Amino acid sequence: MSISFFIGGARSGKSISAENYTLNLGNNPFYMATCEILDEEMALRVKRHQQRRDKNWTTIVAPLDISGEIQKIGTRGPVLIDCLTLWLSNHLLNKNNLDEKIDELITTLINSKSDIVLVSNEVGTGIVPDNLLAREFRDNAGFMNQKVASVSDEVYWVVAGIQTQIK
Amino acid sequence: MSISFFIGGARSGKSISAENYTLNLGNNPFYMATCEILDEEMALRVKRHQQRRDKNWTTIVAPLDISGEIQKIGTRGPVLIDCLTLWLSNHLLNKNNLDEKIDELITTLINSKSDIVLVSNEVGTGIVPDNLLAREFRDNAGFMNQKVASVSDEVYWVVAGIQTQIK
Amino acid sequence: MSISFFIGGARSGKSISAENYTLNLGNNPFYMATCEILDEEMALRVKRHQQRRDKNWTTIVAPLDISGEIQKIGTRGPVLIDCLTLWLSNHLLNKNNLDEKIDELITTLINSKSDIVLVSNEVGTGIVPDNLLAREFRDNAGFMNQKVASVSDEVYWVVAGIQTQIK
Repeated sequence: MSISFFIGGARSGKSISAENYTLNLGNNPFYMATCEILDEEMALRVKRHQQRRDKNWTTIVAPLDISGEIQKIGTRGPVLIDCLTLWLSNHLLNKNNLDEKIDELITTLINSKSDIVLVSNEVGTGIVPDNLLAREFRDNAGFMNQKVASVSDEVYWVVAGIQTQIK
Repeated sequence: MSISFFIGGARSGKSISAENYTLNLGNNPFYMATCEILDEEMALRVKRHQQRRDKNWTTIVAPLDISGEIQKIGTRGPVLIDCLTLWLSNHLLNKNNLDEKIDELITTLINSKSDIVLVSNEVGTGIVPDNLLAREFRDNAGFMNQKVASVSDEVYWVVAGIQTQIK
Repeated sequence: MSISFFIGGARSGKSISAENYTLNLGNNPFYMATCEILDEEMALRVKRHQQRRDKNWTTIVAPLDISGEIQKIGTRGPVLIDCLTLWLSNHLLNKNNLDEKIDELITTLINSKSDIVLVSNEVGTGIVPDNLLAREFRDNAGFMNQKVASVSDEVYWVVAGIQTQIK
């Protein structure tokens, strides 16, 4: 089973790249959305994503328990998880232990019985944020991305819709 | 006719890379600046850019109507457009429809009779901005960059003055 | 003597990449830390870095005078400098002339008698910062990174712990 990782900025085209990649992995793809639809802005984003996707996808909303959902899917994958930074942010807002959650995710990925494709944001190449919470989130997101990349078979850096394989 | 696209961060050296590239395309290069000189800070930036450039360049200031200016230049190019994020920002401040403006630009690029070289900023890899306007701009800039890259023959990612061809 | 440059975002894994690279350059590596330990948050970061490093390293704290310390080390290197953006920030806070400091650094690098490995942050690919000081810092950091890259024999772009040689 393979683990593939797409990382890029906001609106870099990383989701489309990852979707196309997932479609080539198998006929019964799962789309695991990590967002909770809490406001108009988010609703618009989800709608835009859904309109783009083929009807073949099975959509699962998993704002917190990615690991449990991956285990439930078992061998029925491939599974696209979009995106990890939002999942991490949800755990931060729920005051969960992020190190534990990240390690749990890594263990689940390694033991997954389906091909997994993950999408995440690079959030660390702007100016240092003013507030401590944003800095903590940025640190945790960076560590998460490193760990996910280290267990991934393939890693793609996405800029302006162009994917470049870096691992 | 070719379309080439240089994308990178602020002060990444993308303008110099794009200038050198444009000079190799032909003897009568046009430099299309998208800035309006509204303050001291901007004046300094423009001056720095101009001092660096060879005297052969014909400079055109086009804060809003890139498409019209490209059409006027016709076959007399090549044309360097620096930069698209500022052009998009100008349209945002003028409350114009950004989707329409981007689509108009794409159509003009496809139909251009001169070689075109475009410069743009990656603005999506920092922490999510606090305010809605910045998020909207970031989204629109990302979508614009994707569309421009998709019609470009060559795309270069620029970091610390080093250009890497990604398409 | 070689100059090598690792650039990436916060928590991109650039320090680990640079450390491993430096260890392959020689048996008596120097670690030049540019931070002043002013608060708890910084102390935690330094501790995390130190715990990761092998006992063979000689640590030097050089928040301002990298050039002097490189000269003192002479031929006893290799030297890892982590990181340049913090060094630049220290000079900014001390109201020193950044152009002069950067040029002095470049001269020192060119004349160094040991292999030098430098680490720096890409800080220019987020939204334009609100305040003038942050914009000035971003500009200066970008120019510094360009100059350092231009005199480097090898440049690596680091994302999610994955290093990609771009020069």
